[in-house]
Amino acid sequence: MSLSLNQWTTRRWTLPEAVDGCVRHGLEAIGLWREKVAEHGLARSARLVRESGLRVSSLCRGGFLTAGELSGERGRAALDDNRRAVDEAAELGAACLVMVVGGLPGVTPGEPPPAGFSRDVAGARQRVTEALATLAPYAGERGVRLALEPLHPVYCPDRAVLSTLGQALDLALAHPQEQVGVVVDTFHVWWDPALHEQIARAGGRIASYQVCDYLHPLPADVLLGRGMMGDGVIGFPPITRAVAEAGYTGDVEVEIFNADVWAADPDEVVATMKARYADVVMAS
Amino acid sequence: MSLSLNQWTTRRWTLPEAVDGCVRHGLEAIGLWREKVAEHGLARSARLVRESGLRVSSLCRGGFLTAGELSGERGRAALDDNRRAVDEAAELGAACLVMVVGGLPGVTPGEPPPAGFSRDVAGARQRVTEALATLAPYAGERGVRLALEPLHPVYCPDRAVLSTLGQALDLALAHPQEQVGVVVDTFHVWWDPALHEQIARAGGRIASYQVCDYLHPLPADVLLGRGMMGDGVIGFPPITRAVAEAGYTGDVEVEIFNADVWAADPDEVVATMKARYADVVMAS
Repeated sequence: MSLSLNQWTTRRWTLPEAVDGCVRHGLEAIGLWREKVAEHGLARSARLVRESGLRVSSLCRGGFLTAGELSGERGRAALDDNRRAVDEAAELGAACLVMVVGGLPGVTPGEPPPAGFSRDVAGARQRVTEALATLAPYAGERGVRLALEPLHPVYCPDRAVLSTLGQALDLALAHPQEQVGVVVDTFHVWWDPALHEQIARAGGRIASYQVCDYLHPLPADVLLGRGMMGDGVIGFPPITRAVAEAGYTGDVEVEIFNADVWAADPDEVVATMKARYADVVMAS
Repeated sequence: MSLSLNQWTTRRWTLPEAVDGCVRHGLEAIGLWREKVAEHGLARSARLVRESGLRVSSLCRGGFLTAGELSGERGRAALDDNRRAVDEAAELGAACLVMVVGGLPGVTPGEPPPAGFSRDVAGARQRVTEALATLAPYAGERGVRLALEPLHPVYCPDRAVLSTLGQALDLALAHPQEQVGVVVDTFHVWWDPALHEQIARAGGRIASYQVCDYLHPLPADVLLGRGMMGDGVIGFPPITRAVAEAGYTGDVEVEIFNADVWAADPDEVVATMKARYADVVMAS
């Protein structure tokens, strides 16, 4: 396993700055975000990353598939956007496209539910299943692997009705392994009493191992509850060992959404990240 | 099933006021809290409730078993306190003693972790297993049923390393059904993709069905994210049906921790609760 910078951790950096930062700090991989790629231009970004020698450990993100019936306007728009995300992942040579599947229909992330939103969590989950039946073969034809990311249940209302690794695997196993895998992100799954059993079950389905800590108490904006490894409540070594024992040999991405981290000098953030990765994540 | 007022929903009421409120509003049961019982006196509370004709649907709460080794000072104190809670439940004739098992060792509920806290969530879970081996027979001898409550994973750091209904059942099944059951609290479990499967598996192990809504976004103090049914994101009817199909015929407690509800006139709160129970929880 080798350390990768998810570029949202140093979001003040443009894509060229992030690529340069990774190279200067001796990293071998970077996790990209579509917004940052679009800012710099897709073809230019792909060329820049390729020439840097960095691997693209993931592209963030596809998903948000639950807003409306797939045959309706919102559903078709979501599928179209996901096809574009697959195309971008292919051009960038990303190891996977991270999928944040979406929350309850009608609920905008971070906002109170509007009138008329749906409380049908089972229906939303069914919609994800149906969307994958369309998107997985599309991704497979382009050599892209979808990586289903279970999110902490606190995000179930607005970001992902995919809430456990076991549930993600149930979805993934309906498709070929090279088309659909899963993300193990410590922030989202550390609490899961079935975690070790499901990591072992996942085996070669693990498409991405992402690490950051879980802050407690969470900040008022729960999206920003991700912390530098060692600053929260997660015991990393047992999870890292389980992921390694499951056969994962890919990159380990550090993805932190945190106001203090974003305000800090990105070079210091990367230096801290490297030290904590060695001391906290990979500690035996 | 029949509606019960968990007295923390109307926490401004003393125990006699809450008993009187339940009787005036035509409820048949009340869920009691140890603090309120202690305020009024255990023997007096038991007599008052008995004479009122109300059932005691639960006593809240035992638990917090994870602070230290069970053989050490903190562990022994926790076991002693839980034995007292069992004795109180027996004297009150409570249908069950709700168990909130405790979070990571050293973490005080609602507060940032202190130096030297433990990140060993598996170890904390093992401690709960060991404590139950002592407490379940003690409860059984006194005719009290322990009701293991899985809490939403957002409370895993500080309140309960028991995070899913399936995990609670795994623990409960090691003991006789009359000694250890589980709580299905909609707030805590609504997001669980395995919920319906686990409710069916629970069957006669369901010791308590508690309802309140899950507010989104959560307030800054996540403990107060419980809302009146209909004010949040939970779709109640499928959960209520599953609990009924599992064979549960006990009381349905409404337990709401919410600053606005606590500030309101308790009589209005109970009236709203009755209306929402009929319209939202029991709707077909």
